[in-house]
Amino acid sequence: MTAAGVDALVLQRPENLRYLCGFTGSDGALVLHRHASVFLTDSRYTTQAREQVAADRVAEYKVKADGIVAELRECEATCIGFEAELAYSAVTDLQNLGEDVWQWSPLKDELQSLRLHKTTEEIAAIEAAAALNAAAFAEIRGSIKPGVAEREVSLALEFALKRRGADEKAFDIIVASGPRGAMPHGIASERVLQRGELVTVDFGCRRAGYHSDETVTLALGDVPEQLRRMHDVVLRAHDLALAAVRPGIPLVDLDRVARDCINEAGFGAFFGHGLGHGVGLEVHEPPTVSPRSKLSAESGMVFTIEPGIYVPEVGGVRIEDMVLVTAEGCRVLTKISKTFADCLIN
Amino acid sequence: MTAAGVDALVLQRPENLRYLCGFTGSDGALVLHRHASVFLTDSRYTTQAREQVAADRVAEYKVKADGIVAELRECEATCIGFEAELAYSAVTDLQNLGEDVWQWSPLKDELQSLRLHKTTEEIAAIEAAAALNAAAFAEIRGSIKPGVAEREVSLALEFALKRRGADEKAFDIIVASGPRGAMPHGIASERVLQRGELVTVDFGCRRAGYHSDETVTLALGDVPEQLRRMHDVVLRAHDLALAAVRPGIPLVDLDRVARDCINEAGFGAFFGHGLGHGVGLEVHEPPTVSPRSKLSAESGMVFTIEPGIYVPEVGGVRIEDMVLVTAEGCRVLTKISKTFADCLIN
Repeated sequence: MTAAGVDALVLQRPENLRYLCGFTGSDGALVLHRHASVFLTDSRYTTQAREQVAADRVAEYKVKADGIVAELRECEATCIGFEAELAYSAVTDLQNLGEDVWQWSPLKDELQSLRLHKTTEEIAAIEAAAALNAAAFAEIRGSIKPGVAEREVSLALEFALKRRGADEKAFDIIVASGPRGAMPHGIASERVLQRGELVTVDFGCRRAGYHSDETVTLALGDVPEQLRRMHDVVLRAHDLALAAVRPGIPLVDLDRVARDCINEAGFGAFFGHGLGHGVGLEVHEPPTVSPRSKLSAESGMVFTIEPGIYVPEVGGVRIEDMVLVTAEGCRVLTKISKTFADCLIN
Repeated sequence: MTAAGVDALVLQRPENLRYLCGFTGSDGALVLHRHASVFLTDSRYTTQAREQVAADRVAEYKVKADGIVAELRECEATCIGFEAELAYSAVTDLQNLGEDVWQWSPLKDELQSLRLHKTTEEIAAIEAAAALNAAAFAEIRGSIKPGVAEREVSLALEFALKRRGADEKAFDIIVASGPRGAMPHGIASERVLQRGELVTVDFGCRRAGYHSDETVTLALGDVPEQLRRMHDVVLRAHDLALAAVRPGIPLVDLDRVARDCINEAGFGAFFGHGLGHGVGLEVHEPPTVSPRSKLSAESGMVFTIEPGIYVPEVGGVRIEDMVLVTAEGCRVLTKISKTFADCLIN
């Protein structure tokens, strides 16, 4: 609070609530000030909050903004920090209910930096989610073959993840085959896989609040030379970036390592997204690894390395692993092999 | 736009994008002004947007706020409406990039009223989602019995919904048995169901963008008199509210019909939430049916009726159906029987 120049904090994002006080429900607010921490929620979650929350007090509100403002009045705060990602209307509701002299300060980087460096427990949780990925993928790999619909693959993968203990998939599973591979976020459709094409499978799960995220691009038998070349280039870009990860490297440079490789191979126009993103309580969280990154890699950060090439009407390739930055370089947290030989289905 | 007093609209919520231009991806923006409609998205979704979107033009941005502001400059708008639910930081990013003379107007009720009355196609989509509920529940009902964990029930239900064509569950499925029934949002846990207790199952799905939402409270054999009484009271409150639905009734009065019934039975302190909420492209959308509702029921609205009683350490009951307001009264869109006899598992 001191660093952010505020004398109270109102937090409402589920990830921050979980991180700071252990609440796993979907709606509540944590008010922190110099004298106490108070967790507020509605009647749906009061019983659950009393079981879970590490705060000095748990209170119930009928209307969230009323509850928060009443609490702030009691603690006599005047400069109040809030999450910049909060809905605009939620912020103006608070401002309208509060005192005119109160100052409201949106916090983004200040809060994000709280969760940037993972603890040993957090790393273990992320690795456990990655292990579910590997086990579920091994279980269903045999069903990825010509004649099967993308959606069948994604359901099999999702059910396998959940049967093995995942609380949820990390996002809608992407199974993008043939020309659909040109859509970087091509969620599984009814399209049927065909021999001689590539299929990109991008998936992950959440367990105990923490996420995994990983992409494999498989070849269904012999594929045309151009697709094979795209796979080689993306894998090289991926490997070069992995090898470059170490504490101190600006993330913009890490992005450039992969981007230069793809540019030099002539595919620069077909890699439109950033190289990676942080993973933790959110599947997309800081740090961003892209041409616009401002941070440098630091020990304890966890992020993805996921270069791709997407050629409209032809197809696409993306290869993604999650890495933990270590003192020496990095440790790859995802376990599925990404080599072309291991991605060839015959 | 005229009604809202703006000369351009910037929309970004996925539900509004789907409703107004057909885009089903997770990230983009629709800019509407007097001369044209322009859909903006990033490279992940450009191919998909060109396939799906009904707009005069599809354009790609690297940074969303830059793309939106460039488009607004081109159309020479000065008063710009945006969704009040948008993140505070996203709004301030736009404001900081835009011209000082531009006025930014948060819209809430104006936009929500767009989707308040369902078309025939939307009603059919909601009913199809409700039909999936009934079929999936019938399929797995036999597995709800003493000795089975709540989580097993929720996974079986989720897989059945998805195998039958649901795109997603509407929310984390609630399976709250025994004392956990006192948590209105008690997401399925590892707790094992026991004979002689109630179990509340609250679930729904999304198909073609539209949702279903429904709650059944089952009795696992003979239950204590108090629980049986709670079930009777909630069912009576539910039936009374259903019978009261007709065009013109203030939603606050509809809530009161159910609340009075529960109050009179002595359980008023144990019904902390509103009676219902609208369902459509979002599973929780306007209108709200609660003591704070401002709207009246109108033909074409779809909302839930879901009274409940939650007694800490004892258990809980909630009974929920979705109704469509019709000229004559209402039509119940959900199909599972809620009578005690049909909810008794022996």
